[in-house]
Amino acid sequence: MIIVMQQNIDKQLTKAVEARIKELGYVPHIISGEKRDVVGAVGDERGKMVLQSIESMPGVEKVVPILKPYKLASLEVSPQPSRVELAPGVVIGGEEIIVMAGPCAVESEEQIIQTAHAVKRAGARVLRGGAFKPRTSPYSFQGMEEDGLKLLAAARAETGLPIITEVVNPRDVELVARYADIMQVGARNMQNFALLKMLGQLDKPILLKRGMSATIQEFLMSAEYILAEGNRRVVLCERGIRTFETATRNTLDISAVPVLKEQTHLPVVIDPSHATGHVSLVPSMSYAAVAAGCDGLIVEVHPHPEKAASDGPQSLRPAAFADMMIRLKAFVAAAQRTLPTVD
Amino acid sequence: MIIVMQQNIDKQLTKAVEARIKELGYVPHIISGEKRDVVGAVGDERGKMVLQSIESMPGVEKVVPILKPYKLASLEVSPQPSRVELAPGVVIGGEEIIVMAGPCAVESEEQIIQTAHAVKRAGARVLRGGAFKPRTSPYSFQGMEEDGLKLLAAARAETGLPIITEVVNPRDVELVARYADIMQVGARNMQNFALLKMLGQLDKPILLKRGMSATIQEFLMSAEYILAEGNRRVVLCERGIRTFETATRNTLDISAVPVLKEQTHLPVVIDPSHATGHVSLVPSMSYAAVAAGCDGLIVEVHPHPEKAASDGPQSLRPAAFADMMIRLKAFVAAAQRTLPTVD
Amino acid sequence: MIIVMQQNIDKQLTKAVEARIKELGYVPHIISGEKRDVVGAVGDERGKMVLQSIESMPGVEKVVPILKPYKLASLEVSPQPSRVELAPGVVIGGEEIIVMAGPCAVESEEQIIQTAHAVKRAGARVLRGGAFKPRTSPYSFQGMEEDGLKLLAAARAETGLPIITEVVNPRDVELVARYADIMQVGARNMQNFALLKMLGQLDKPILLKRGMSATIQEFLMSAEYILAEGNRRVVLCERGIRTFETATRNTLDISAVPVLKEQTHLPVVIDPSHATGHVSLVPSMSYAAVAAGCDGLIVEVHPHPEKAASDGPQSLRPAAFADMMIRLKAFVAAAQRTLPTVD
Amino acid sequence: MIIVMQQNIDKQLTKAVEARIKELGYVPHIISGEKRDVVGAVGDERGKMVLQSIESMPGVEKVVPILKPYKLASLEVSPQPSRVELAPGVVIGGEEIIVMAGPCAVESEEQIIQTAHAVKRAGARVLRGGAFKPRTSPYSFQGMEEDGLKLLAAARAETGLPIITEVVNPRDVELVARYADIMQVGARNMQNFALLKMLGQLDKPILLKRGMSATIQEFLMSAEYILAEGNRRVVLCERGIRTFETATRNTLDISAVPVLKEQTHLPVVIDPSHATGHVSLVPSMSYAAVAAGCDGLIVEVHPHPEKAASDGPQSLRPAAFADMMIRLKAFVAAAQRTLPTVD
Repeated sequence: MIIVMQQNIDKQLTKAVEARIKELGYVPHIISGEKRDVVGAVGDERGKMVLQSIESMPGVEKVVPILKPYKLASLEVSPQPSRVELAPGVVIGGEEIIVMAGPCAVESEEQIIQTAHAVKRAGARVLRGGAFKPRTSPYSFQGMEEDGLKLLAAARAETGLPIITEVVNPRDVELVARYADIMQVGARNMQNFALLKMLGQLDKPILLKRGMSATIQEFLMSAEYILAEGNRRVVLCERGIRTFETATRNTLDISAVPVLKEQTHLPVVIDPSHATGHVSLVPSMSYAAVAAGCDGLIVEVHPHPEKAASDGPQSLRPAAFADMMIRLKAFVAAAQRTLPTVD
Repeated sequence: MIIVMQQNIDKQLTKAVEARIKELGYVPHIISGEKRDVVGAVGDERGKMVLQSIESMPGVEKVVPILKPYKLASLEVSPQPSRVELAPGVVIGGEEIIVMAGPCAVESEEQIIQTAHAVKRAGARVLRGGAFKPRTSPYSFQGMEEDGLKLLAAARAETGLPIITEVVNPRDVELVARYADIMQVGARNMQNFALLKMLGQLDKPILLKRGMSATIQEFLMSAEYILAEGNRRVVLCERGIRTFETATRNTLDISAVPVLKEQTHLPVVIDPSHATGHVSLVPSMSYAAVAAGCDGLIVEVHPHPEKAASDGPQSLRPAAFADMMIRLKAFVAAAQRTLPTVD
Repeated sequence: MIIVMQQNIDKQLTKAVEARIKELGYVPHIISGEKRDVVGAVGDERGKMVLQSIESMPGVEKVVPILKPYKLASLEVSPQPSRVELAPGVVIGGEEIIVMAGPCAVESEEQIIQTAHAVKRAGARVLRGGAFKPRTSPYSFQGMEEDGLKLLAAARAETGLPIITEVVNPRDVELVARYADIMQVGARNMQNFALLKMLGQLDKPILLKRGMSATIQEFLMSAEYILAEGNRRVVLCERGIRTFETATRNTLDISAVPVLKEQTHLPVVIDPSHATGHVSLVPSMSYAAVAAGCDGLIVEVHPHPEKAASDGPQSLRPAAFADMMIRLKAFVAAAQRTLPTVD
Repeated sequence: MIIVMQQNIDKQLTKAVEARIKELGYVPHIISGEKRDVVGAVGDERGKMVLQSIESMPGVEKVVPILKPYKLASLEVSPQPSRVELAPGVVIGGEEIIVMAGPCAVESEEQIIQTAHAVKRAGARVLRGGAFKPRTSPYSFQGMEEDGLKLLAAARAETGLPIITEVVNPRDVELVARYADIMQVGARNMQNFALLKMLGQLDKPILLKRGMSATIQEFLMSAEYILAEGNRRVVLCERGIRTFETATRNTLDISAVPVLKEQTHLPVVIDPSHATGHVSLVPSMSYAAVAAGCDGLIVEVHPHPEKAASDGPQSLRPAAFADMMIRLKAFVAAAQRTLPTVD
């Protein structure tokens, strides 16, 4: 932590900051500049949040944090990439690129079973489908809830694909965990800390989506909430951030992939469907995601997008998804990664 | 809803869209342009969400929503400004400007009682204080929880000020409601729909903060979640949005005040502390908020900001708050509003 | 400048950074932390830009600038607010709030003369009007050019109001300066450095608009370009920044007013017309701007907005402008400022 | 253009809008909804800008543009991708991916010649280098100007690589054009319309960079300025947009590539150096750009980034550039494109 003092102030003010740093248990180092002093505070990293309050002391211009506030998520603590087992035999973060696919929302048995077969055939290793839907409008379809979870379980029984589904309420964690192989935290809940803490106590892998306007540092701090409770199976998902551009639903922050890879050992997945909002953009963004170094994709596929209860415009038809998976192979190979072999 | 067709396409595609609009229960109107067709869909407004799926039909370029998706929050449904009773004798949305003040977090009995007396003396009508704190880092102080609520209640007993405090977990709604006069939904939970629905079933006023990157329309849709469950005592709070500018913690979207006033009957409050993050900016932003037409302010005040467990740099000392309240009077008068008389 | 080294690296790398800092003429100070070193570089402030290149040295994690890169614009160099004479007897930056008003574009003699009389009557002290219009589309009206300047001069002759008008091309600086009292740099040209340098050599006041996505620091650096060439009569204008919100044309960054007042001695003006894009929002944003501490306003007024060649939806009719000026008086008084008396 | 009327208004207001649409030369179509009317205006597309002024008429809630305002840049006018000849034998927009590389700024003969040889050897087809530098600070290095252009020409003579360099002032267009093969418009000048118009009259290819906060539509409108003057050799360059994220210098909007490909026939280039600001992110973003469908890359390469006069932290060393070009080949092949064979 660096404390920048104001110009031409009484040296006693700098001395007071120095004393306060010692009082908080850190070692102060004063650099006297030509016009102002700068004070460094050295010590154990995690508690440094309280140093921020020094900004309220007289004579202080600003407090500049130097170190990253997360620990368990950091490469400095775990220098090797984590391989997260999503289900028996399905490991993300290693050589294989894992593709998860399925409808935005589970709508009917026929819809989810048909989609499960189709995405499995095309090479997906995990089936996605929402049973609890966080919708902007109270008048929109809110999901089939437990009935949806049962249909997902039926699709798993039929195809063998593990299932990922979203949980939005701490109250439902236990219920969803009874059915799901992987628990998904949506972008709107990235800072629902009560939910994160409960998921941290679970023995299930968690896919954590980045909030719409979360910085990468905040994203990693949310992962840290889960990790700090003991659950180390966290997968990060970039799904587009909010910007001024309206040509796409969100703006895919593709450089988040290598930035995360420089900072954390956790696997990184891209959601090209929510990032773009338009089905025509999904294939090229999937290729780009793999080229950028991601470990997996999560893609919306629906047999009849024009009748979907939600997110139709961004859902690929099964045939388009299969075509994309074929073209994806070349990019996976160029990235020196593999796609799981389909039986 | 307006459906824009692609250029120079087969007229059968337009006919298919027309048929689908009828099937969904709306009346289609085709406008044939020189190069393309445009189809309007007329009918009851609320269900129109499903029309969006038409964007997946062949030949459709885009679907443009025309009407606002909220209803109970709209001025069209309730043309008169709502007066919300926050506590007996404390009404927001009328002539009076209501100021809420207090520390970010309750830290001790001395701190909260001392602050309560100070803000009351200066003219605040509601005491704020956090007991459950949603913090970016799991290693930061997370609040005193129920002990904090008890201290708030003690401060109310001592000063007569009603209390507002945040609830972050649906599980705690009942607990917090036992102590609080007004329930606060923080920016990070603006789209925590499970929480909103529970608060909609409560007989307590709700202060709903705008999410960091929520549009005004999304903000009103979140209010609609509470209203639709039956609770009509909703107060909206603008607290700064996330932009590229780093000189302030967030960017106060001051024009949200008149924009909201054109669209909704709900009262609007400004939080200049979170919006700016710097104590030196709080007074001028409070004056501007009143000039812009807001109905109230919620301001962070702490007796010792340099020792605050959170948000020290944006907390006014009691003396500075009192000074601000004195200067505020002139702006309140200029806005043809009043400040409650202090006993 | 603070150089943060990576964790657990060879101490020789820190020594190399130390040597390079000396080579560049600064004094290095090493703070050895528990896990990493931090190096401060002390010396004359302005040349520090080259220190940034140290980020490319091995072992360096990042370079954190501590000091502000502008000088002539800073309060540290000129601690007193500057009073800028816009025209004989029209001074901005002192006690008086200066209102500039007029149409987006000069369209005809009748239009500009009629508007000039109307805004003068209502209390404006400067007439605005565009002759060279930077338009997003090449097919939009581009301004009347020199004919427009002549009409502005005619309006000045008739009313005595000094005129402000935009210059967009370095080539036209001399031409525009022959007619204008105040030269305006539009948001799109805030970093047109060739233009700024030419204006810096002029003996005319300059109104510099903030770029749509410029930080406050970049804004002040652009002012510094003009100041560094010798022209000290610079007025800053906040006119809304680009954000994700679409309810308004731009987002008025009202806190830019007190932030600028803490950093610079230059006068600050608000443009509520471009900031909001909607005529109904202009009055409340003007009141808020004065309450926030600005020194002036620049407002679009057009006798027939529904026939305006540009910016109709954000142009006040003369009667609405006059009403606003009447209500503005109370806020000006509350801010302990004055409006010039109208003859 | 769709005009949305307010609810429950006098039908005369709708009739007035209808009349005004006719007066402007368009054909009005009224759709009477349950609660409000909507009016479509049909006619030639380009002049529609004046219809926007209808928003100022009484009873009008908003005006929604339906059609895209650009024409020559659109795929609707030119459905085939344009192949732009950058220099004899160097064509962009076809099968080949064209890589342009070189230093941010020309600093010395040795630097530019050495870099030119290195990037040529690695497979670059065009040499980049700045002679006129638009710098945020007036105290930063502003470029070698004509001396820099001469050094670029010397590097071309030595290596045969065509050169691209930026022009920032309309006054210098002729001078720069005497030396450059390709004229570059920087992000800060994307809406410097005077400059665009002059470049539109030139017989040289233009690389137009997207402004930091320009929408894709505004970007295409700026291209339209050049095209409308007669110069059809325009190449678009995405170089990162400004967002709230600070981990990268800008945020690479990778989805701009397929969005542009759906709307325009012009070739699209990515600048991974400015988009990210960090050399370690440049290779993965280059691979992603090719996977996303771009036609070329423009990359900063400097022999000694730690001594660069500008942009050191984002400049690859020649060896790193050569490594990247080798790995790039696999992604180019996966994208079914080619890299030019190096002699």
